[in-house]
Amino acid sequence: MTETPAPFTADDHAARMRRAESAAAAAGLDGVLVAPGPDLVWLTGYRPVETERLTMLVLRPGEDPVLVVPALEAPDAARAAPALALRDWTDGQDPYAAAVSLLGPAGGGTGRYAVSDNTWAMHLLGLQQRLPDTGYVSLTESLPMLRAVKDAAELDRLAAAGAAADATFEEIRKVPFAGRRETDVAADLAELLRRFGHSQVDFTIVASGPNGANPHHEPGARTIERGDMVVLDFGGLKDGYGSDTSRTVHVGEPDAEERRVHDIVRAAQEEGCRAVRPGAACQDVDRAARAVIDEAGYGAYFVHRTGHGIGVTTHEPPYMVEGEERPLVPGMCFSVEPGIYLPGRFGVRIEDIVTVTEDGGRRLNTTSRELVIVD
Amino acid sequence: MTETPAPFTADDHAARMRRAESAAAAAGLDGVLVAPGPDLVWLTGYRPVETERLTMLVLRPGEDPVLVVPALEAPDAARAAPALALRDWTDGQDPYAAAVSLLGPAGGGTGRYAVSDNTWAMHLLGLQQRLPDTGYVSLTESLPMLRAVKDAAELDRLAAAGAAADATFEEIRKVPFAGRRETDVAADLAELLRRFGHSQVDFTIVASGPNGANPHHEPGARTIERGDMVVLDFGGLKDGYGSDTSRTVHVGEPDAEERRVHDIVRAAQEEGCRAVRPGAACQDVDRAARAVIDEAGYGAYFVHRTGHGIGVTTHEPPYMVEGEERPLVPGMCFSVEPGIYLPGRFGVRIEDIVTVTEDGGRRLNTTSRELVIVD
Repeated sequence: MTETPAPFTADDHAARMRRAESAAAAAGLDGVLVAPGPDLVWLTGYRPVETERLTMLVLRPGEDPVLVVPALEAPDAARAAPALALRDWTDGQDPYAAAVSLLGPAGGGTGRYAVSDNTWAMHLLGLQQRLPDTGYVSLTESLPMLRAVKDAAELDRLAAAGAAADATFEEIRKVPFAGRRETDVAADLAELLRRFGHSQVDFTIVASGPNGANPHHEPGARTIERGDMVVLDFGGLKDGYGSDTSRTVHVGEPDAEERRVHDIVRAAQEEGCRAVRPGAACQDVDRAARAVIDEAGYGAYFVHRTGHGIGVTTHEPPYMVEGEERPLVPGMCFSVEPGIYLPGRFGVRIEDIVTVTEDGGRRLNTTSRELVIVD
Repeated sequence: MTETPAPFTADDHAARMRRAESAAAAAGLDGVLVAPGPDLVWLTGYRPVETERLTMLVLRPGEDPVLVVPALEAPDAARAAPALALRDWTDGQDPYAAAVSLLGPAGGGTGRYAVSDNTWAMHLLGLQQRLPDTGYVSLTESLPMLRAVKDAAELDRLAAAGAAADATFEEIRKVPFAGRRETDVAADLAELLRRFGHSQVDFTIVASGPNGANPHHEPGARTIERGDMVVLDFGGLKDGYGSDTSRTVHVGEPDAEERRVHDIVRAAQEEGCRAVRPGAACQDVDRAARAVIDEAGYGAYFVHRTGHGIGVTTHEPPYMVEGEERPLVPGMCFSVEPGIYLPGRFGVRIEDIVTVTEDGGRRLNTTSRELVIVD
C-alpha cells in the first residue's frame, strides 16, 4: 500500500488562488466566483456539503480572497481554510447581499466574473437579479486550463490513483464472471478500489455482451455468460485525485470478429497515446485514435470523444475532442479511451490516463491492453 | 424490516410533469427546465450521474415533455423513462442547440422559464448566451411548493425512512460513547442507517462537548469523554425518500445547567410542533419554537431557522423561517429542530420530521425526547 501524501498547505492554496486571480486578470475578468465543488477544494482545501445555502469564494485580482459562508458553517470553513477571510450570513438574511457587496469595481456591480461550472443556477440567478449589469461566464469556458496543468505533487497523486486502479484490474481479472450478475462484479470493483486506497468510488461500469454497446451502461441484473465481451470502466478518488481506466475482457475464448474489433481499438488507443506531446492540439489525439477506427471501417461505431482531463475530478478540461485546438502542455493529464460499440452485440473500450511529458506522453495505467480471458 | 414499496409508475411521473406544467402556466411561466438531481428524479424517475454533459428535461404547458440527453446516455434514459421523448446530442455538437430549439413560443426565445435550483451555472449560461431575451428564475423561487405537498405513497416512504432513523437511534443509544472518537460513533450511525434500509447516508453528525456548539460540525478525531453532551443528527434516503432526526444525549449524569438547556430545547421543539396546522404560516412554527428559547434568555444562541422540508431530498421547501409567510398545507413534511449552542461549551438540538394533517401535525420520529444518558 502506498502511504498517504502530505496534505496541501495554506501556501499551496494561496498560490493556486493567486494563479486563478492572474488568469482572470489576463482574460479581462474582474474575478472568479467559486461554489462548493472541485474548484473550491482545489483552491482552498475546503469541502463543504453542497446545499441550498450560499457558500461562495470571491477572488478578485489585487484583493484578498473572501469566502461568503453560512454562519452555521463558518466554524468548519475556518478550520479547513484558516488563512481565508470569511464573510458570513445568517438564516433569514439575504445571502446574496454578502456576495454582491464584494463584486464589481468598488462593489459597483458592472464587472465580469467567471463562475465555477457547477455553481447552482439558483445562486447565479440570485446574483444576476441583484446586479443585472454584471456579466458572468462559466469558469471552464473562460479559464479552461486553470487546473489542467498538474504540478509534481498532483502528478504523484494521479499516478498513485492510477496504480490503485491497475491493482484493482489485476484482481478483478481473477474473479469468476460467468454466471454472476454485472452488479456483483461491479460490487467487487468498488470493494477493490477501496481496498487499494480509494476514498470515493465514482463509477464501476460492467457492461456485458450487448450491454457493452452502451458506453455509459449502468451495471444491471444481467447475468454474464460464457462467450460475452465485458467492458470494465472504473475509477474514483484516492487522496483527492482521480483514477479512470477501462479494459475489455472476454469470458472464455473470443471469436475472430471479437478479436479483430479488440485489436482495432487497441491500435487506436496506441495511436492516440502516441499523438500526445507538447504543442500538439487536443483534437490531434482524438483524430489519431479515430483515424485507426475509421480506416478499419468502424468509424460510425465510435460515438464519443477520445478523452477528458482528470485531477480533483474524473471529468474536466482538457477534452480530447474535434474542435479543441488548444495545445497540450507538460503536466496535463487526461484519458485516451477510444471504443467501438456494435448495437445489440458487444462493445470494446480501452482507456489509460496519460500525462504530457517534456517530449511525449506517459501512461499512468500500465496493465495489459491485450484481450484478457476471464472465467 | 419493512418491505420495499412498489416503484412509482410512468403514470405517476406523467401526473407530476403535468402538475409542474400547470403550476408553471399559473405562474405565468413558459415552462420548466430540469437538470439531473432530485427534481428530475421526482418528475421522471431518471437518475443520471451529474456531469458536464447537458441533460435537461424541458416541460412546456400544452406540449409533450422532452428530455435533452447526451447520445451516450440515451439508452439509460430510455430505459429509466420509456414514455419520455428524447432529443439527443453527440460529443462535439453544441449541446445547447438541442435545448434552445425547444424554448420560447415556437422556439422564438422570448419566454420565461423556471430552472431547477441545482442546474449547473455553465448550462444556464449556455442557454442565456444563445437566447439573451429569454428569462430564467429558480424553480424554488418561482414554484417553491411544487414538491412540498406529499401524496399518500410519498408519506408512506417518509414514515418508513423516519422509522428506520428511529430504529437507528434506539441502537446507537446502547453503544459505548466515552473513550471513542466522534468518527467511530458516526460510522456506527451510518452502518445502522444502512442496516435499517437506507440506500444513501447523507449526514451523521456526532458533535461532542464543545463541538456541539457548531450546528453543522463534521465528526472528527475528538475522543468523547464522560460528562459530554453529544448532539446526534443523522439521515439519508430510504427507497428514495429522506430521513433526518436529531437527539442530544449525555455521557453519564448531566449537571443542572445541561438539564436546564435540554429542557428548554425540548419545550421549544414541542411548541414548534404544536404550531403545525393547516393555514398557519411557515414562520409561525419558527416563531413558536423561538419564543420559548427567547423567553428563557438563550435567544442569541439559537442561530438557525427552525426547519426545512424533506422529500426526495433532505433539504427543500417549505422552510420554517422568519419571513416565510406561505401557509402550511396537509401533506407537507418538514423538520422542527430548534437548538441552543453555547460556544466553547456544548450544544443541544432536538429534531423530528413532522407532517401536516387535516387538523394539526403528526411526528414521523417518535423516539424519546427526554435527555438520554449513554455510556
